[in-house]
Amino acid sequence: MTGLFVTFEGVDGVGKTTQAALLEQWLRDAGREVVRTREPGGTEVGERIRDIVLHHRGHVDPRAEALLYAADRAHHIATVVQPALERGGVVIQDRYLDSSVAYQGAGRVLDADDVRRLSLWATEGLLPDVTVLLDLDEADARRRLDADDKPFDRLEAEKADFHARVRAAFLRLAEAEPERFLVVDAAQPVEWIAELVRVRVTERLA
Amino acid sequence: MTGLFVTFEGVDGVGKTTQAALLEQWLRDAGREVVRTREPGGTEVGERIRDIVLHHRGHVDPRAEALLYAADRAHHIATVVQPALERGGVVIQDRYLDSSVAYQGAGRVLDADDVRRLSLWATEGLLPDVTVLLDLDEADARRRLDADDKPFDRLEAEKADFHARVRAAFLRLAEAEPERFLVVDAAQPVEWIAELVRVRVTERLA
Repeated sequence: MTGLFVTFEGVDGVGKTTQAALLEQWLRDAGREVVRTREPGGTEVGERIRDIVLHHRGHVDPRAEALLYAADRAHHIATVVQPALERGGVVIQDRYLDSSVAYQGAGRVLDADDVRRLSLWATEGLLPDVTVLLDLDEADARRRLDADDKPFDRLEAEKADFHARVRAAFLRLAEAEPERFLVVDAAQPVEWIAELVRVRVTERLA
Repeated sequence: MTGLFVTFEGVDGVGKTTQAALLEQWLRDAGREVVRTREPGGTEVGERIRDIVLHHRGHVDPRAEALLYAADRAHHIATVVQPALERGGVVIQDRYLDSSVAYQGAGRVLDADDVRRLSLWATEGLLPDVTVLLDLDEADARRRLDADDKPFDRLEAEKADFHARVRAAFLRLAEAEPERFLVVDAAQPVEWIAELVRVRVTERLA
């Protein structure tokens, strides 16, 4: 048996956790070792890094913040993900370097290519075997916002614009690596998406 | 008036702190704003990063450690050093990227060029105007060890070997950038070294 590294990507609220849980259960039922994980915070060192980034009262320099996230990633991959893959386990991770690149690219504080290089250095170049991108178009995203029954103010409009930029960045990444990415319309039924994911994972495990 | 960034480099015990203090006093007497600083730990964020690296009980991945030090450096340079330089101050710093490169090169866990690139990315390429390398040859280093009146065991011999590798790495860095580096024999009298440093700093301030 060989290990497999599966990541779920996409903006908040597209169903990454639901799909990760369904895949985990299906793999466990099939007798595979599964490690479900996420960043930041997969390790004690990661928790302490997360605490600096999220709870420091003053300003944290953007490069320092990117380096702290890369440090968390380095430690998490070296101590959790790589050992599991070497044991032949399947690692299912909520967000990985594609999120870093897409969000950084959309926010435009740092160069997205720099962030990608940093991440690849941190992980000794570890890329997922399968990356599931749960994609939601603007109309559906808007519908989900409306369903929350909140007024659509200027802040929401800015959020929608940011969402559109992050979405476009994710789609560009998927286009550049079609072998690794499975792009799924997140508006489809949960069970249908889960089946598409299972098919791709089965192919890669074969 | 223009700011000036001065770093002191060299192995432990060569007199960096003494020389930094003498330069600071001399510049203050001449009416300059001086910021004395060091890494890690120059900022609150830095203290918390240092705490992770030094006091975590388990193993910290070497890449994570290098990224944490780079994060501390990014934050320290952006929030302490650059603002002081922009005000026209003189920043005197105990150790900077040359230490990271020399110690990493001597320890041979990570690639020294990678560590240099990481540091330059963290600081947006900030190099010191003057780097004083306090250099001590093996015989003098051994004499200082003997003066401590401790037995010279296998650990000390390993330490001496490591010292020699770090020293050689520092000297290679100085050779590659003769304009930036002032290499001083640390076995010379304190006042004589201080005078050499003052001459170089005065030249650069002119």
